[in-house]
Amino acid sequence: MSQTWQEIASSKRERLNSSIPPEWVIPSSFCPPAEQTDVSKFIAQSGWFTESEIDILSTPATTLQLLLAQGLITSEKVTLAFCKSASVAQQLINPVTEILFDEALATAKALDEYLKVNGKPKGPLHGIPISLKDNFNVKGKDSSLGFTSMVGKPAESNGPLAQLLLDAGAVLYVKTNVPPGMKRAETYNEVFGKTVNPMNSLWAVGGSSGGEGALISFGGSCLGVGSDLGGSCRIPAACGGLFTLRPSVGRWSISKNTVCTPGQDSIPAVPGPMAKTLDDVIMFSKAFADQAPWTYDPQCVPLKWQEIEPKSRLKLAVMWNDGLVAPTPPVQRALEGTVKTLKEAGHEIIDWKVSAEDMQDMADMSFGIFLADSGNWLKKVLEPTGEPVPPGMLWPITGNPKTLIELQEFHVWRDNVRMKWLQKWNSFEGLDGVLIPTSPYGIPEHGKFKYANYTMLWNSIDYPASSFPSGYYVDKDLDKPYTDYTPLGNFDKTVHEEYNPVVCHGAPVSLQIVGRRLEEEKVLMMTKIVHEALSKA
Amino acid sequence: MSQTWQEIASSKRERLNSSIPPEWVIPSSFCPPAEQTDVSKFIAQSGWFTESEIDILSTPATTLQLLLAQGLITSEKVTLAFCKSASVAQQLINPVTEILFDEALATAKALDEYLKVNGKPKGPLHGIPISLKDNFNVKGKDSSLGFTSMVGKPAESNGPLAQLLLDAGAVLYVKTNVPPGMKRAETYNEVFGKTVNPMNSLWAVGGSSGGEGALISFGGSCLGVGSDLGGSCRIPAACGGLFTLRPSVGRWSISKNTVCTPGQDSIPAVPGPMAKTLDDVIMFSKAFADQAPWTYDPQCVPLKWQEIEPKSRLKLAVMWNDGLVAPTPPVQRALEGTVKTLKEAGHEIIDWKVSAEDMQDMADMSFGIFLADSGNWLKKVLEPTGEPVPPGMLWPITGNPKTLIELQEFHVWRDNVRMKWLQKWNSFEGLDGVLIPTSPYGIPEHGKFKYANYTMLWNSIDYPASSFPSGYYVDKDLDKPYTDYTPLGNFDKTVHEEYNPVVCHGAPVSLQIVGRRLEEEKVLMMTKIVHEALSKA
Repeated sequence: MSQTWQEIASSKRERLNSSIPPEWVIPSSFCPPAEQTDVSKFIAQSGWFTESEIDILSTPATTLQLLLAQGLITSEKVTLAFCKSASVAQQLINPVTEILFDEALATAKALDEYLKVNGKPKGPLHGIPISLKDNFNVKGKDSSLGFTSMVGKPAESNGPLAQLLLDAGAVLYVKTNVPPGMKRAETYNEVFGKTVNPMNSLWAVGGSSGGEGALISFGGSCLGVGSDLGGSCRIPAACGGLFTLRPSVGRWSISKNTVCTPGQDSIPAVPGPMAKTLDDVIMFSKAFADQAPWTYDPQCVPLKWQEIEPKSRLKLAVMWNDGLVAPTPPVQRALEGTVKTLKEAGHEIIDWKVSAEDMQDMADMSFGIFLADSGNWLKKVLEPTGEPVPPGMLWPITGNPKTLIELQEFHVWRDNVRMKWLQKWNSFEGLDGVLIPTSPYGIPEHGKFKYANYTMLWNSIDYPASSFPSGYYVDKDLDKPYTDYTPLGNFDKTVHEEYNPVVCHGAPVSLQIVGRRLEEEKVLMMTKIVHEALSKA
Repeated sequence: MSQTWQEIASSKRERLNSSIPPEWVIPSSFCPPAEQTDVSKFIAQSGWFTESEIDILSTPATTLQLLLAQGLITSEKVTLAFCKSASVAQQLINPVTEILFDEALATAKALDEYLKVNGKPKGPLHGIPISLKDNFNVKGKDSSLGFTSMVGKPAESNGPLAQLLLDAGAVLYVKTNVPPGMKRAETYNEVFGKTVNPMNSLWAVGGSSGGEGALISFGGSCLGVGSDLGGSCRIPAACGGLFTLRPSVGRWSISKNTVCTPGQDSIPAVPGPMAKTLDDVIMFSKAFADQAPWTYDPQCVPLKWQEIEPKSRLKLAVMWNDGLVAPTPPVQRALEGTVKTLKEAGHEIIDWKVSAEDMQDMADMSFGIFLADSGNWLKKVLEPTGEPVPPGMLWPITGNPKTLIELQEFHVWRDNVRMKWLQKWNSFEGLDGVLIPTSPYGIPEHGKFKYANYTMLWNSIDYPASSFPSGYYVDKDLDKPYTDYTPLGNFDKTVHEEYNPVVCHGAPVSLQIVGRRLEEEKVLMMTKIVHEALSKA
């Protein structure tokens, strides 16, 4: 008797939630009331976590790394704390798709033993719990990407990324939620439902790495790995007040995981670390590169991590808008404030005015490539269970896939776009990087994250980009909607009409720092300089 | 009045040959007799070159670089010598497609002036004449690739490679012949005709960079750039007794030149230097990387040239055959001798036995990709002038191009192949490189270069590979055809049946050294060690 898609979904959810150990099910006396929109302080303030747990859960990964490597804390203890906090996160904000607690605890105990026997850590991530987005294959676990037809098909082996992390000493303990096929900037699907923003249940969590963003933001993970095709790490990082890095294609391993459009490598996705501190992102980046990902994945470039000295005077180009959509008022204020601070700190700031034509050309080319299979993938993934087209799906079934010849024409177009942006970058002599908001939004209301070109641009031309919280927050009094605003176009009109500073009051505003291709180290160095300047301001 | 394709071809040839200045047309008294098969010593022995010219033309590029940079010789003088020798080569072996003598002499004079004024060379290739394969775009010159429909369509601007070379101080003076669309390992087309091997007119020149190979082998160029999609630098280098390097994709710039299948980037071509000495190839490689190709071409990886120390004990894996075709006797003898020499020199040599299944899988995947457009490109390039399908064209017009979905399935297949070879490489602990013949042939007779998997493998999995003359030569007495040979399969049968040691007596035998992806420096280091060991033996 085959199940309906609804039955597949509900039994998968039930199995997931019933695999939370009873001792970590929140007692009703500790449950926040349904009308409470902010659960972000639950770990610290609910009284249901011990002091020791709170201590671990509020310690940055970089500090945990030091403590674990010296045996000052056990991996088992750290893992238990994060399994508990992820269990709680699941009950409050629904970010999890797969639970690996048994495997995680076994790994943690083995690592503790390893340290005892060998007197040194297994690798640069020894004992650190790391959460993974649902698409990263872990042996024996589904990578269902929110589709019922993909439930119950566990990965036969670890993907290179999961294997590399395990070899580096990481503890894998949960996988996290995504929109269907990872093809939206919101995190809702028919299998696992909606992931909620812990800071405010009315706000978007973004996507597609929305489960990661929400879990880390809540405190259910200190370090997670998402993936980014058009902003899928940076957008949910921004919605969680987190730091992330979208690396260049080939810097880190993405091969042999699960994706609904295998073989689409015209504009590939990349994996990216997400964390509450920039140092954690840097620590992960270095650890990953030092583990020689090119020996795991033929797509990886053999670039060791370079230690680079911070520059005392950066030359940064600001993109105030992308020619098509201008930032909403809080983002504009954050950008103005950042530029002022950077100038006062002695950095050279110039303007990079993006033309609407160039941006539209980039977007048309990129969406041309992304939509080139005309929804063939979606049809293939819905048919087996009769699941309907998921709500909000933007990559619809439209007809026959493009031909190979049409795709090759897109490649020529893409390469022309890339050449144009490279030449423009070269035209600013001595330019170190670009400063541009992560999106036109602080954090929009759930369902209203609609414009991703601020991030997608860098995927399309394959430049590394960080996203970091600027230290500015949406303020309903300071950031009133513009009156008498002349929009740059239709999209800009929608973005500004939907802007709601009352609901989004208090949301962090994030910015990106962008570098040249494969200059991940430099992007992180620049981000550190900018973030530190803003922290002092 | 539109011309027929034959008229277009003959008038193009006429324009080409009439642009050779009268003073460099070989006087009939100096012309070798028609029956003379070997013209390789014409420069040195004909009496028609001055001592000074002979001196320049027999000086390696690396030495010329030093002399030019110090002003001990003028770029004008060097350029004049090479323009003369290329003119002569054209009359004897037909390797040239475009003549740029006027531009070259103007460049050379400007460089001499630059050195005088600035007291330092313009760049690392200051004053060195460099020949380019026909596909590299040079402003104002055709890149016709042997098709009449592409004649008379000069490039509007320099491609990034030509521009980079000019910026590095090179003098561009000729472009060289290719098979139609660069899609054969022989160099003949209806526009320019056949390029002849200067060492023996009965031998193949290989392809697709056959014009380069023949020109350099003759002495008409000291340094040339070819391109390699399946062996297109290594095969003609082997047919010319030359050194070359097939770099990894993205190490050097190939973008924005002319190709019949634009946007085919599933397995891309790469540019490669070709020269008579290994040091010249190394000098070019370093100069190219130091010129920051990633600032010219968005596809280039920002990898500076690394100086690496030679290893005293290399660990090399020998591929005695590829499972499908075994080397002909002289190549077997060269490989055995090389292995013996390397072992005696203290290197560790292990066997890498390639399975026929793995090799066939690689070949099926690669040809699947190469033929995926079903000859659409050929149709498009023949139709405008009604030119017939060129003789020997192996990539025929067969029907409808594959769909995008089918192409993406090929990508998944390709990535699986790459993963398999990477894991196999990893399984040999501490492996530095692979030693494999460049082809099963020494040099075959013209028209009989049919098997290119020894080289194509490395394009398919994107590993850098050098090709170098082993110091062994076909010997009709030592290398008699096998009697009682059991072929590995049909292709092997053909290769061994067509092997003719009498015609190919004296042909150099070339081998490849292969390294991991983007380890160009290491491949050259290993090649130097192996070549020096062989030179001493």
